[in-house]
Amino acid sequence: MADAPLVAGIELGGTKCNCILARGPDSIEDEVRIPTTAPAETLAAIEQVLAGWSGFASIGIASFGPISIDRDAGDYGSITATPKPGWSRTDIVRRIERRFGVPVGFHTDVVGAALAEAKWGAAKGLADIAYVTVGTGIGVGLIAGGKPVDGLTHAELGHIRPVRIDGDDWIGNCPFHGGCVEGLCAGPAIAARTGTRAEHLPADHPAWDLVAHGLGQLLHTLVLTGIPRRIVMGGGVMVGTSHLFPRVRAAMIDSLAGYVPLPEVGLSRYVVPPALGNNAGPLGAILLGAQALERG
Amino acid sequence: MADAPLVAGIELGGTKCNCILARGPDSIEDEVRIPTTAPAETLAAIEQVLAGWSGFASIGIASFGPISIDRDAGDYGSITATPKPGWSRTDIVRRIERRFGVPVGFHTDVVGAALAEAKWGAAKGLADIAYVTVGTGIGVGLIAGGKPVDGLTHAELGHIRPVRIDGDDWIGNCPFHGGCVEGLCAGPAIAARTGTRAEHLPADHPAWDLVAHGLGQLLHTLVLTGIPRRIVMGGGVMVGTSHLFPRVRAAMIDSLAGYVPLPEVGLSRYVVPPALGNNAGPLGAILLGAQALERG
Repeated sequence: MADAPLVAGIELGGTKCNCILARGPDSIEDEVRIPTTAPAETLAAIEQVLAGWSGFASIGIASFGPISIDRDAGDYGSITATPKPGWSRTDIVRRIERRFGVPVGFHTDVVGAALAEAKWGAAKGLADIAYVTVGTGIGVGLIAGGKPVDGLTHAELGHIRPVRIDGDDWIGNCPFHGGCVEGLCAGPAIAARTGTRAEHLPADHPAWDLVAHGLGQLLHTLVLTGIPRRIVMGGGVMVGTSHLFPRVRAAMIDSLAGYVPLPEVGLSRYVVPPALGNNAGPLGAILLGAQALERG
Repeated sequence: MADAPLVAGIELGGTKCNCILARGPDSIEDEVRIPTTAPAETLAAIEQVLAGWSGFASIGIASFGPISIDRDAGDYGSITATPKPGWSRTDIVRRIERRFGVPVGFHTDVVGAALAEAKWGAAKGLADIAYVTVGTGIGVGLIAGGKPVDGLTHAELGHIRPVRIDGDDWIGNCPFHGGCVEGLCAGPAIAARTGTRAEHLPADHPAWDLVAHGLGQLLHTLVLTGIPRRIVMGGGVMVGTSHLFPRVRAAMIDSLAGYVPLPEVGLSRYVVPPALGNNAGPLGAILLGAQALERG
Protein backbone atom coordinates (compact mmCIF):
# COMPACT_ATOMS: atom_id res chain seq x y z
CA MET A 1 0.00 0.00 0.00
CA ALA A 2 2.90 2.35 0.73
CA ASP A 3 3.83 1.93 -2.94
CA ALA A 4 0.43 3.18 -4.09
CA PRO A 5 0.31 6.90 -4.96
CA LEU A 6 -1.39 9.36 -2.65
CA VAL A 7 -4.52 10.51 -4.49
CA ALA A 8 -7.22 13.07 -3.82
CA GLY A 9 -10.57 11.44 -4.60
CA ILE A 10 -13.88 13.16 -5.12
CA GLU A 11 -17.16 11.30 -5.22
CA LEU A 12 -19.51 13.84 -6.79
CA GLY A 13 -23.02 12.78 -5.81
CA GLY A 14 -26.45 14.20 -6.35
CA THR A 15 -26.90 15.23 -2.71
CA LYS A 16 -23.37 15.19 -1.27
CA CYS A 17 -19.72 15.05 -2.29
CA ASN A 18 -17.15 12.94 -0.50
CA CYS A 19 -13.57 14.17 -0.68
CA ILE A 20 -10.91 11.71 0.42
CA LEU A 21 -7.12 11.78 0.61
CA ALA A 22 -5.85 8.22 0.47
CA ARG A 23 -3.69 5.53 -1.09
CA GLY A 24 -6.34 2.88 -0.49
CA PRO A 25 -8.83 1.64 2.11
CA ASP A 26 -6.11 1.03 4.72
CA SER A 27 -4.41 4.38 4.36
CA ILE A 28 -7.06 7.09 4.40
CA GLU A 29 -5.45 10.33 5.56
CA ASP A 30 -8.51 12.58 5.51
CA GLU A 31 -12.16 12.54 4.52
CA VAL A 32 -14.48 15.55 4.15
CA ARG A 33 -18.15 15.61 3.20
CA ILE A 34 -19.68 18.58 1.37
CA PRO A 35 -23.35 19.09 0.45
CA THR A 36 -24.04 19.26 -3.31
CA THR A 37 -25.70 22.62 -3.96
CA ALA A 38 -25.16 24.92 -6.94
CA PRO A 39 -22.14 23.97 -9.13
CA ALA A 40 -20.04 27.11 -8.46
CA GLU A 41 -20.52 26.83 -4.71
CA THR A 42 -19.96 23.06 -4.58
CA LEU A 43 -16.87 23.08 -6.79
CA ALA A 44 -15.36 25.99 -4.83
CA ALA A 45 -15.89 24.07 -1.59
CA ILE A 46 -14.25 20.97 -3.08
CA GLU A 47 -11.29 23.03 -4.27
CA GLN A 48 -10.91 24.52 -0.81
CA VAL A 49 -10.70 21.04 0.70
CA LEU A 50 -8.10 19.93 -1.85
CA ALA A 51 -6.10 23.14 -1.40
CA GLY A 52 -5.76 22.25 2.28
CA TRP A 53 -4.18 18.91 1.40
CA SER A 54 -0.67 18.37 0.14
CA GLY A 55 1.33 15.63 -1.46
CA PHE A 56 -1.30 14.09 -3.71
CA ALA A 57 0.05 12.98 -7.09
CA SER A 58 -3.25 12.99 -8.92
CA ILE A 59 -6.98 13.55 -8.53
CA GLY A 60 -9.83 11.15 -9.31
CA ILE A 61 -13.45 12.15 -9.74
CA ALA A 62 -16.34 9.66 -9.72
CA SER A 63 -19.38 11.62 -10.72
CA PHE A 64 -23.12 11.33 -11.12
CA GLY A 65 -24.00 11.42 -14.81
CA PRO A 66 -24.45 11.73 -17.64
CA ILE A 67 -20.90 12.93 -18.18
CA SER A 68 -18.60 13.33 -21.16
CA ILE A 69 -15.73 10.86 -20.95
CA ASP A 70 -14.62 11.21 -24.58
CA ARG A 71 -11.15 12.77 -24.34
CA ASP A 72 -11.40 13.96 -27.95
CA ALA A 73 -14.69 15.81 -27.37
CA GLY A 74 -14.90 19.54 -26.68
CA ASP A 75 -17.01 18.92 -23.59
CA TYR A 76 -14.70 16.23 -22.12
CA GLY A 77 -14.79 16.22 -18.36
CA SER A 78 -18.14 17.90 -17.94
CA ILE A 79 -21.56 16.89 -16.76
CA THR A 80 -23.71 16.92 -19.91
CA ALA A 81 -27.54 16.99 -19.82
CA THR A 82 -28.78 16.32 -16.31
CA PRO A 83 -32.20 17.12 -14.82
CA LYS A 84 -30.32 18.34 -11.73
CA PRO A 85 -30.91 22.14 -11.67
CA GLY A 86 -27.91 24.19 -12.74
CA TRP A 87 -25.58 21.27 -13.39
CA SER A 88 -26.09 20.70 -17.13
CA ARG A 89 -22.93 21.51 -19.12
CA THR A 90 -20.85 22.03 -15.98
CA ASP A 91 -17.13 21.65 -16.64
CA ILE A 92 -15.44 19.71 -13.86
CA VAL A 93 -12.15 18.23 -15.06
CA ARG A 94 -10.61 21.19 -16.89
CA ARG A 95 -11.35 23.49 -13.98
CA ILE A 96 -9.77 21.08 -11.47
CA GLU A 97 -6.77 20.42 -13.76
CA ARG A 98 -6.08 24.14 -14.15
CA ARG A 99 -6.31 24.71 -10.42
CA PHE A 100 -4.11 21.83 -9.24
CA GLY A 101 -1.87 20.95 -12.19
CA VAL A 102 -1.88 17.19 -11.60
CA PRO A 103 -3.44 14.42 -13.75
CA VAL A 104 -7.20 14.08 -13.23
CA GLY A 105 -9.15 10.86 -13.76
CA PHE A 106 -12.87 11.15 -14.41
CA HIS A 107 -15.67 8.65 -14.78
CA THR A 108 -19.11 7.74 -13.52
CA ASP A 109 -19.83 6.87 -9.91
CA VAL A 110 -20.76 3.33 -10.97
CA VAL A 111 -17.50 2.78 -12.86
CA GLY A 112 -15.71 4.09 -9.76
CA ALA A 113 -17.63 1.62 -7.61
CA ALA A 114 -16.81 -1.18 -10.08
CA LEU A 115 -13.08 -0.40 -9.89
CA ALA A 116 -13.15 -0.28 -6.09
CA GLU A 117 -15.15 -3.50 -5.68
CA ALA A 118 -12.81 -5.24 -8.17
CA LYS A 119 -9.71 -4.06 -6.31
CA TRP A 120 -10.74 -4.32 -2.66
CA GLY A 121 -14.33 -5.54 -2.43
CA ALA A 122 -16.81 -8.18 -3.51
CA ALA A 123 -15.04 -8.89 -6.81
CA LYS A 124 -11.49 -8.70 -5.46
CA GLY A 125 -8.97 -10.10 -7.90
CA LEU A 126 -11.28 -9.95 -10.91
CA ALA A 127 -10.42 -7.51 -13.69
CA ASP A 128 -13.68 -7.84 -15.63
CA ILE A 129 -16.86 -7.02 -13.75
CA ALA A 130 -20.13 -5.12 -13.86
CA TYR A 131 -21.39 -2.94 -11.01
CA VAL A 132 -25.13 -2.33 -11.02
CA THR A 133 -26.80 0.20 -8.75
CA VAL A 134 -30.55 -0.05 -8.23
CA GLY A 135 -31.69 3.06 -6.37
CA THR A 136 -33.40 6.22 -7.53
CA GLY A 137 -32.13 5.19 -10.97
CA ILE A 138 -30.40 2.13 -12.38
CA GLY A 139 -26.78 2.56 -13.41
CA VAL A 140 -24.25 0.09 -14.77
CA GLY A 141 -20.47 0.40 -14.61
CA LEU A 142 -18.42 -1.93 -16.79
CA ILE A 143 -14.72 -2.61 -16.40
CA ALA A 144 -12.59 -4.96 -18.51
CA GLY A 145 -8.93 -5.68 -17.95
CA GLY A 146 -9.18 -3.50 -14.84
CA LYS A 147 -10.08 -0.41 -16.89
CA PRO A 148 -13.39 1.30 -17.69
CA VAL A 149 -14.97 0.06 -20.92
CA ASP A 150 -15.04 3.30 -22.86
CA GLY A 151 -16.03 4.29 -26.34
CA LEU A 152 -18.41 6.97 -27.47
CA THR A 153 -19.76 7.41 -23.94
CA HIS A 154 -20.36 5.50 -20.70
CA ALA A 155 -22.75 2.58 -20.33
CA GLU A 156 -26.41 3.40 -19.71
CA LEU A 157 -27.69 -0.16 -19.71
CA GLY A 158 -30.31 0.56 -17.03
CA HIS A 159 -32.35 1.93 -19.94
CA ILE A 160 -32.63 -1.25 -22.00
CA ARG A 161 -36.19 -2.47 -22.61
CA PRO A 162 -36.84 -5.82 -20.90
CA VAL A 163 -39.42 -8.35 -22.02
CA ARG A 164 -42.23 -8.56 -19.48
CA ILE A 165 -43.91 -11.32 -17.51
CA ASP A 166 -47.22 -12.26 -19.19
CA GLY A 167 -49.98 -10.05 -17.87
CA ASP A 168 -47.68 -7.31 -16.57
CA ASP A 169 -48.64 -4.28 -18.61
CA TRP A 170 -47.79 -1.42 -16.22
CA ILE A 171 -46.40 1.31 -18.47
CA GLY A 172 -43.41 2.17 -16.28
CA ASN A 173 -42.23 5.61 -15.23
CA CYS A 174 -39.08 6.39 -17.21
CA PRO A 175 -39.71 9.75 -18.87
CA PHE A 176 -37.89 8.52 -21.98
CA HIS A 177 -38.88 4.87 -22.27
CA GLY A 178 -41.72 4.14 -19.89
CA GLY A 179 -40.99 0.48 -19.26
CA CYS A 180 -37.22 0.27 -19.54
CA VAL A 181 -35.48 -1.54 -16.65
CA GLU A 182 -35.07 1.73 -14.73
CA GLY A 183 -38.71 2.65 -15.43
CA LEU A 184 -39.85 -0.69 -13.97
CA CYS A 185 -37.36 -1.66 -11.27
CA ALA A 186 -35.77 1.46 -9.74
CA GLY A 187 -36.99 2.69 -6.36
CA PRO A 188 -39.38 5.33 -7.71
CA ALA A 189 -40.87 2.79 -10.15
CA ILE A 190 -41.52 0.31 -7.33
CA ALA A 191 -43.14 3.07 -5.26
CA ALA A 192 -45.23 4.26 -8.22
CA ARG A 193 -46.34 0.74 -9.05
CA THR A 194 -47.20 -0.40 -5.52
CA GLY A 195 -47.87 2.80 -3.57
CA THR A 196 -45.24 1.63 -1.08
CA ARG A 197 -41.56 2.51 -0.87
CA ALA A 198 -39.31 -0.44 -1.72
CA GLU A 199 -37.82 -0.64 1.78
CA HIS A 200 -41.32 -1.09 3.27
CA LEU A 201 -42.58 -3.56 0.66
CA PRO A 202 -42.87 -7.06 2.17
CA ALA A 203 -40.75 -9.80 0.62
CA ASP A 204 -43.86 -11.73 -0.45
CA HIS A 205 -45.37 -8.80 -2.37
CA PRO A 206 -45.99 -9.93 -5.98
CA ALA A 207 -44.29 -6.78 -7.33
CA TRP A 208 -40.92 -8.25 -6.32
CA ASP A 209 -41.34 -11.01 -8.91
CA LEU A 210 -41.78 -8.37 -11.59
CA VAL A 211 -38.77 -6.42 -10.31
CA ALA A 212 -36.63 -9.59 -10.19
CA HIS A 213 -37.72 -10.45 -13.73
CA GLY A 214 -36.76 -7.01 -15.08
CA LEU A 215 -33.41 -7.05 -13.30
CA GLY A 216 -32.88 -10.63 -14.52
CA GLN A 217 -33.29 -9.35 -18.09
CA LEU A 218 -30.66 -6.70 -17.40
CA LEU A 219 -28.26 -9.34 -16.08
CA HIS A 220 -29.00 -11.60 -19.09
CA THR A 221 -27.85 -8.71 -21.29
CA LEU A 222 -24.78 -8.01 -19.15
CA VAL A 223 -23.70 -11.66 -19.41
CA LEU A 224 -24.09 -11.47 -23.21
CA THR A 225 -21.74 -8.48 -23.42
CA GLY A 226 -19.13 -11.13 -22.59
CA ILE A 227 -17.52 -8.90 -20.00
CA PRO A 228 -18.43 -9.66 -16.36
CA ARG A 229 -16.76 -12.43 -14.39
CA ARG A 230 -18.96 -11.24 -11.52
CA ILE A 231 -21.84 -8.78 -11.15
CA VAL A 232 -21.94 -6.63 -8.00
CA MET A 233 -25.37 -5.17 -7.26
CA GLY A 234 -25.76 -2.25 -4.87
CA GLY A 235 -28.02 0.73 -4.34
CA GLY A 236 -30.93 1.41 -2.04
CA VAL A 237 -33.29 -1.16 -3.56
CA MET A 238 -30.76 -4.03 -3.32
CA VAL A 239 -29.35 -3.14 0.09
CA GLY A 240 -31.75 -4.32 2.77
CA THR A 241 -33.74 -6.59 0.47
CA SER A 242 -31.48 -9.60 0.59
CA HIS A 243 -34.36 -11.78 -0.66
CA LEU A 244 -33.93 -10.06 -4.02
CA PHE A 245 -30.47 -11.48 -4.82
CA PRO A 246 -31.45 -15.14 -5.28
CA ARG A 247 -34.56 -14.10 -7.20
CA VAL A 248 -32.66 -11.85 -9.61
CA ARG A 249 -30.03 -14.52 -10.12
CA ALA A 250 -32.71 -17.16 -10.78
CA ALA A 251 -34.44 -14.85 -13.27
CA MET A 252 -31.12 -14.35 -15.08
CA ILE A 253 -30.38 -18.10 -15.23
CA ASP A 254 -33.93 -18.80 -16.38
CA SER A 255 -33.69 -16.18 -19.13
CA LEU A 256 -30.26 -17.31 -20.37
CA ALA A 257 -31.73 -20.82 -20.65
CA GLY A 258 -28.42 -22.63 -20.80
CA TYR A 259 -26.79 -20.25 -23.27
CA VAL A 260 -23.25 -19.17 -22.20
CA PRO A 261 -22.71 -22.45 -20.30
CA LEU A 262 -19.68 -21.18 -18.38
CA PRO A 263 -19.44 -22.44 -14.80
CA GLU A 264 -18.89 -18.90 -13.43
CA VAL A 265 -22.35 -17.76 -14.51
CA GLY A 266 -24.04 -20.60 -12.65
CA LEU A 267 -22.42 -19.90 -9.29
CA SER A 268 -24.33 -18.05 -6.58
CA ARG A 269 -21.30 -15.78 -6.15
CA TYR A 270 -21.76 -14.56 -9.72
CA VAL A 271 -24.28 -11.98 -8.45
CA VAL A 272 -23.28 -10.44 -5.12
CA PRO A 273 -23.81 -7.39 -2.91
CA PRO A 274 -20.99 -4.85 -2.66
CA ALA A 275 -18.44 -5.27 0.15
CA LEU A 276 -17.28 -1.68 0.51
CA GLY A 277 -20.59 0.01 1.32
CA ASN A 278 -20.44 3.80 1.22
CA ASN A 279 -16.69 3.66 0.71
CA ALA A 280 -16.95 2.27 -2.83
CA GLY A 281 -17.53 5.73 -4.30
CA PRO A 282 -14.61 7.59 -2.72
CA LEU A 283 -12.28 4.59 -3.14
CA GLY A 284 -13.33 4.36 -6.79
CA ALA A 285 -12.31 7.99 -7.17
CA ILE A 286 -8.88 7.11 -5.71
CA LEU A 287 -8.47 4.40 -8.36
CA LEU A 288 -9.55 6.75 -11.15
CA GLY A 289 -6.87 9.14 -9.94
CA ALA A 290 -4.27 6.38 -9.83
CA GLN A 291 -5.17 5.34 -13.39
CA ALA A 292 -4.85 8.96 -14.57
CA LEU A 293 -1.34 8.97 -13.12
CA GLU A 294 -0.41 5.80 -15.04
CA ARG A 295 -1.68 7.42 -18.25
CA GLY A 296 0.36 10.51 -17.41
CA MET B 1 1.96 -0.53 -45.19
CA ALA B 2 5.54 -1.71 -45.66
CA ASP B 3 5.99 -1.11 -41.93
CA ALA B 4 3.13 -3.44 -41.06
CA PRO B 5 4.22 -6.98 -40.16
CA LEU B 6 3.64 -9.83 -42.55
CA VAL B 7 0.95 -12.01 -40.98
CA ALA B 8 -0.66 -15.32 -41.83
CA GLY B 9 -4.39 -14.93 -41.35
CA ILE B 10 -6.98 -17.68 -41.06
CA GLU B 11 -10.70 -17.04 -41.28
CA LEU B 12 -12.19 -20.22 -39.86
CA GLY B 13 -15.74 -20.38 -41.13
CA GLY B 14 -18.54 -22.89 -40.86
CA THR B 15 -18.30 -23.98 -44.50
CA LYS B 16 -14.89 -22.72 -45.63
CA CYS B 17 -11.60 -21.37 -44.33
CA ASN B 18 -9.75 -18.50 -45.96
CA CYS B 19 -6.00 -18.46 -45.45
CA ILE B 20 -4.24 -15.25 -46.37
CA LEU B 21 -0.65 -14.03 -46.26
CA ALA B 22 -0.65 -10.23 -46.07
CA ARG B 23 0.34 -7.00 -44.37
CA GLY B 24 -3.00 -5.39 -45.24
CA PRO B 25 -5.54 -5.02 -48.04
CA ASP B 26 -2.99 -3.51 -50.44
CA SER B 27 -0.30 -6.09 -49.90
CA ILE B 28 -1.86 -9.54 -50.09
CA GLU B 29 0.84 -12.03 -51.06
CA ASP B 30 -1.28 -15.16 -51.21
CA GLU B 31 -4.79 -16.38 -50.53
CA VAL B 32 -5.98 -19.99 -50.30
CA ARG B 33 -9.48 -21.31 -49.65
CA ILE B 34 -10.07 -24.65 -47.92
CA PRO B 35 -13.42 -26.35 -47.27
CA THR B 36 -14.31 -26.80 -43.60
CA THR B 37 -14.79 -30.53 -43.04
CA ALA B 38 -13.75 -32.56 -39.97
CA PRO B 39 -11.43 -30.70 -37.57
CA ALA B 40 -8.36 -32.92 -38.03
CA GLU B 41 -8.58 -32.76 -41.80
CA THR B 42 -9.32 -29.04 -41.95
CA LEU B 43 -6.59 -28.04 -39.50
CA ALA B 44 -4.05 -30.25 -41.27
CA ALA B 45 -4.92 -28.57 -44.57
CA ILE B 46 -4.54 -25.11 -43.00
CA GLU B 47 -1.17 -26.09 -41.53
CA GLN B 48 -0.05 -27.32 -44.92
CA VAL B 49 -0.88 -23.94 -46.49
CA LEU B 50 0.97 -22.05 -43.75
CA ALA B 51 3.97 -24.40 -43.98
CA GLY B 52 4.29 -23.41 -47.62
CA TRP B 53 4.58 -19.73 -46.68
CA SER B 54 7.60 -18.05 -45.13
CA GLY B 55 8.42 -14.82 -43.42
CA PHE B 56 5.25 -14.28 -41.43
CA ALA B 57 5.85 -12.82 -37.96
CA SER B 58 2.59 -13.97 -36.40
CA ILE B 59 -0.66 -15.75 -37.10
CA GLY B 60 -4.20 -14.46 -36.61
CA ILE B 61 -7.31 -16.62 -36.45
CA ALA B 62 -10.85 -15.25 -36.75
CA SER B 63 -13.13 -18.14 -35.97
CA PHE B 64 -16.75 -19.13 -35.88
CA GLY B 65 -17.87 -19.53 -32.28
CA PRO B 66 -18.41 -20.02 -29.49
CA ILE B 67 -14.73 -19.98 -28.64
CA SER B 68 -12.67 -19.62 -25.47
CA ILE B 69 -10.80 -16.29 -25.51
CA ASP B 70 -9.94 -16.32 -21.79
CA ARG B 71 -6.14 -16.60 -21.71
CA ASP B 72 -6.27 -17.87 -18.13
CA ALA B 73 -8.66 -20.70 -18.94
CA GLY B 74 -7.57 -24.27 -19.58
CA ASP B 75 -9.49 -24.36 -22.84
CA TYR B 76 -8.11 -21.05 -24.17
CA GLY B 77 -7.89 -21.00 -27.91
CA SER B 78 -10.43 -23.71 -28.59
CA ILE B 79 -13.91 -23.91 -30.04
CA THR B 80 -16.16 -24.71 -27.08
CA ALA B 81 -19.71 -26.04 -27.48
CA THR B 82 -20.83 -25.80 -31.09
CA PRO B 83 -23.63 -27.67 -32.83
CA LYS B 84 -21.19 -28.15 -35.74
CA PRO B 85 -20.48 -31.90 -35.79
CA GLY B 86 -17.07 -32.85 -34.45
CA TRP B 87 -15.89 -29.34 -33.66
CA SER B 88 -16.88 -29.01 -29.98
CA ARG B 89 -13.82 -28.73 -27.73
CA THR B 90 -11.42 -28.51 -30.68
CA ASP B 91 -8.12 -26.89 -29.74
CA ILE B 92 -6.97 -24.45 -32.39
CA VAL B 93 -4.47 -21.97 -30.94
CA ARG B 94 -2.20 -24.25 -28.95
CA ARG B 95 -1.87 -26.65 -31.88
CA ILE B 96 -0.98 -23.80 -34.29
CA GLU B 97 1.40 -22.20 -31.76
CA ARG B 98 3.27 -25.49 -31.26
CA ARG B 99 3.56 -26.05 -34.98
CA PHE B 100 4.75 -22.58 -36.03
CA GLY B 101 6.33 -21.04 -32.92
CA VAL B 102 5.08 -17.49 -33.55
CA PRO B 103 2.51 -15.44 -31.59
CA VAL B 104 -1.08 -16.38 -32.42
CA GLY B 105 -4.05 -14.00 -32.12
CA PHE B 106 -7.50 -15.55 -31.78
CA HIS B 107 -10.99 -14.14 -31.66
CA THR B 108 -14.41 -14.43 -33.22
CA ASP B 109 -15.08 -13.81 -36.90
CA VAL B 110 -17.25 -10.79 -35.98
CA VAL B 111 -14.52 -9.21 -33.85
CA GLY B 112 -12.13 -9.80 -36.74
CA ALA B 113 -14.59 -8.09 -39.10
CA ALA B 114 -14.99 -5.20 -36.61
CA LEU B 115 -11.21 -4.70 -36.48
CA ALA B 116 -10.92 -4.78 -40.28
CA GLU B 117 -13.85 -2.40 -40.89
CA ALA B 118 -12.45 -0.01 -38.26
CA LYS B 119 -9.01 -0.06 -39.83
CA TRP B 120 -9.74 -0.12 -43.54
CA GLY B 121 -13.50 -0.17 -44.10
CA ALA B 122 -16.81 1.47 -43.26
CA ALA B 123 -15.66 2.68 -39.84
CA LYS B 124 -12.16 3.71 -40.90
CA GLY B 125 -10.47 5.87 -38.28
CA LEU B 126 -12.84 4.89 -35.45
CA ALA B 127 -11.43 2.86 -32.58
CA ASP B 128 -14.76 2.02 -30.92
CA ILE B 129 -17.30 0.19 -33.05
CA ALA B 130 -19.73 -2.70 -33.18
CA TYR B 131 -19.94 -5.12 -36.08
CA VAL B 132 -23.24 -6.98 -36.37
CA THR B 133 -23.77 -9.88 -38.73
CA VAL B 134 -27.32 -10.91 -39.56
CA GLY B 135 -27.21 -14.17 -41.46
CA THR B 136 -27.82 -17.74 -40.39
CA GLY B 137 -27.28 -16.39 -36.87
CA ILE B 138 -26.79 -12.96 -35.38
CA GLY B 139 -23.34 -12.16 -34.05
CA VAL B 140 -21.91 -9.01 -32.51
CA GLY B 141 -18.25 -8.01 -32.37
CA LEU B 142 -17.29 -5.15 -30.06
CA ILE B 143 -14.02 -3.24 -30.15
CA ALA B 144 -13.01 -0.33 -27.94
CA GLY B 145 -9.76 1.58 -28.19
CA GLY B 146 -9.00 -0.51 -31.26
CA LYS B 147 -8.97 -3.76 -29.26
CA PRO B 148 -11.55 -6.49 -28.70
CA VAL B 149 -13.73 -5.90 -25.63
CA ASP B 150 -12.87 -9.01 -23.65
CA GLY B 151 -13.75 -10.31 -20.25
CA LEU B 152 -15.18 -13.67 -19.29
CA THR B 153 -15.98 -14.48 -22.91
CA HIS B 154 -16.93 -12.84 -26.20
CA ALA B 155 -20.13 -10.91 -26.82
CA GLU B 156 -23.23 -12.90 -27.73
CA LEU B 157 -25.64 -9.99 -27.88
CA GLY B 158 -27.62 -11.51 -30.76
CA HIS B 159 -29.31 -13.52 -28.01
CA ILE B 160 -30.83 -10.66 -26.02
CA ARG B 161 -34.61 -10.71 -25.73
CA PRO B 162 -36.23 -7.77 -27.53
CA VAL B 163 -39.61 -6.29 -26.66
CA ARG B 164 -42.09 -6.97 -29.44
CA ILE B 165 -44.44 -4.94 -31.57
CA ASP B 166 -47.98 -5.20 -30.19
CA GLY B 167 -49.73 -8.18 -31.70
CA ASP B 168 -46.53 -9.97 -32.77
CA ASP B 169 -46.57 -13.17 -30.78
CA TRP B 170 -44.62 -15.56 -33.04
CA ILE B 171 -42.57 -17.68 -30.65
CA GLY B 172 -39.31 -17.44 -32.58
CA ASN B 173 -36.94 -20.27 -33.46
CA CYS B 174 -33.89 -19.95 -31.21
CA PRO B 175 -33.48 -23.38 -29.57
CA PHE B 176 -32.44 -21.62 -26.32
CA HIS B 177 -34.63 -18.53 -26.17
CA GLY B 178 -37.36 -18.75 -28.80
CA GLY B 179 -37.86 -15.07 -29.42
CA CYS B 180 -34.41 -13.58 -28.86
CA VAL B 181 -33.15 -11.27 -31.61
CA GLU B 182 -31.52 -14.20 -33.41
CA GLY B 183 -34.65 -16.28 -33.01
CA LEU B 184 -36.74 -13.52 -34.61
CA CYS B 185 -34.52 -11.73 -37.11
CA ALA B 186 -31.84 -14.11 -38.45
CA GLY B 187 -32.28 -15.62 -41.91
CA PRO B 188 -33.74 -18.93 -40.73
CA ALA B 189 -36.20 -17.08 -38.45
CA ILE B 190 -37.43 -14.93 -41.35
CA ALA B 191 -37.83 -18.03 -43.50
CA ALA B 192 -39.65 -19.90 -40.71
CA ARG B 193 -41.96 -16.98 -40.04
CA THR B 194 -42.85 -16.16 -43.64
CA GLY B 195 -42.23 -19.36 -45.59
CA THR B 196 -39.94 -17.35 -47.87
CA ARG B 197 -36.19 -16.92 -47.77
CA ALA B 198 -35.15 -13.40 -46.77
CA GLU B 199 -33.52 -12.67 -50.13
CA HIS B 200 -36.83 -13.41 -51.91
CA LEU B 201 -39.08 -11.55 -49.46
CA PRO B 202 -40.41 -8.32 -51.04
CA ALA B 203 -39.46 -5.04 -49.37
CA ASP B 204 -43.12 -4.29 -48.57
CA HIS B 205 -43.71 -7.59 -46.76
CA PRO B 206 -44.97 -6.80 -43.23
CA ALA B 207 -42.42 -9.19 -41.68
CA TRP B 208 -39.67 -6.66 -42.46
CA ASP B 209 -41.21 -4.24 -39.93
CA LEU B 210 -40.96 -6.93 -37.26
CA VAL B 211 -37.36 -7.72 -38.25
CA ALA B 212 -36.42 -4.02 -38.24
CA HIS B 213 -38.01 -3.61 -34.83
CA GLY B 214 -36.08 -6.53 -33.34
CA LEU B 215 -32.79 -5.36 -34.84
CA GLY B 216 -33.60 -1.83 -33.63
CA GLN B 217 -33.85 -3.21 -30.09
CA LEU B 218 -30.43 -4.81 -30.52
CA LEU B 219 -28.96 -1.50 -31.68
CA HIS B 220 -30.67 0.33 -28.78
CA THR B 221 -28.80 -2.02 -26.46
CA LEU B 222 -25.51 -1.62 -28.32
CA VAL B 223 -25.75 2.18 -28.03
CA LEU B 224 -26.36 1.81 -24.28
CA THR B 225 -23.16 -0.21 -23.83
CA GLY B 226 -21.55 3.19 -24.47
CA ILE B 227 -19.07 1.66 -26.90
CA PRO B 228 -19.88 2.13 -30.59
CA ARG B 229 -19.11 5.33 -32.47
CA ARG B 230 -20.52 3.50 -35.48
CA ILE B 231 -22.35 0.21 -36.08
CA VAL B 232 -21.46 -1.80 -39.17
CA MET B 233 -24.13 -4.34 -40.18
CA GLY B 234 -23.29 -7.17 -42.55
CA GLY B 235 -24.38 -10.75 -43.21
CA GLY B 236 -26.70 -12.33 -45.74
CA VAL B 237 -29.90 -10.71 -44.44
CA MET B 238 -28.48 -7.16 -44.54
CA VAL B 239 -26.56 -7.50 -47.80
CA GLY B 240 -28.98 -7.18 -50.67
CA THR B 241 -31.83 -5.72 -48.59
CA SER B 242 -30.71 -2.10 -48.58
CA HIS B 243 -34.26 -1.05 -47.58
CA LEU B 244 -33.53 -2.58 -44.18
CA PHE B 245 -30.84 -0.08 -43.12
CA PRO B 246 -33.04 3.04 -42.79
CA ARG B 247 -35.76 0.98 -41.11
CA VAL B 248 -33.41 -0.53 -38.52
CA ARG B 249 -31.90 2.87 -37.85
CA ALA B 250 -35.36 4.44 -37.46
CA ALA B 251 -36.39 1.65 -35.07
CA MET B 252 -33.25 2.27 -32.98
CA ILE B 253 -33.85 6.04 -32.83
CA ASP B 254 -37.51 5.49 -31.98
CA SER B 255 -36.62 3.07 -29.19
CA LEU B 256 -33.89 5.28 -27.69
CA ALA B 257 -36.49 8.08 -27.59
CA GLY B 258 -34.00 10.91 -27.19
CA TYR B 259 -31.89 9.16 -24.56
CA VAL B 260 -28.11 9.37 -25.32
CA PRO B 261 -28.56 12.67 -27.22
CA LEU B 262 -25.13 12.52 -28.86
CA PRO B 263 -25.04 13.83 -32.43
CA GLU B 264 -23.20 10.73 -33.69
CA VAL B 265 -26.13 8.46 -32.89
CA GLY B 266 -28.54 10.58 -34.93
CA LEU B 267 -26.50 10.51 -38.14
CA SER B 268 -27.45 8.17 -40.97
CA ARG B 269 -23.80 7.06 -41.12
CA TYR B 270 -24.11 5.70 -37.57
CA VAL B 271 -25.49 2.43 -39.01
CA VAL B 272 -23.76 1.38 -42.22
CA PRO B 273 -23.05 -1.65 -44.41
CA PRO B 274 -19.53 -3.09 -44.41
CA ALA B 275 -17.07 -1.81 -46.99
CA LEU B 276 -14.71 -4.77 -47.20
CA GLY B 277 -17.17 -7.45 -48.26
CA ASN B 278 -15.77 -10.97 -48.09
CA ASN B 279 -12.33 -9.59 -47.28
CA ALA B 280 -13.34 -8.41 -43.79
CA GLY B 281 -12.86 -11.87 -42.31
CA PRO B 282 -9.35 -12.65 -43.62
CA LEU B 283 -8.19 -9.04 -43.05
CA GLY B 284 -9.56 -9.21 -39.51
CA ALA B 285 -7.41 -12.30 -38.99
CA ILE B 286 -4.39 -10.30 -40.18
CA LEU B 287 -5.13 -7.63 -37.55
CA LEU B 288 -5.58 -10.24 -34.81
CA GLY B 289 -2.15 -11.58 -35.76
CA ALA B 290 -0.63 -8.09 -35.70
CA GLN B 291 -2.12 -7.47 -32.23
CA ALA B 292 -0.70 -10.77 -30.97
CA LEU B 293 2.72 -9.60 -32.14
CA GLU B 294 2.36 -6.32 -30.20
CA ARG B 295 1.44 -8.30 -27.07
CA GLY B 296 4.50 -10.49 -27.68
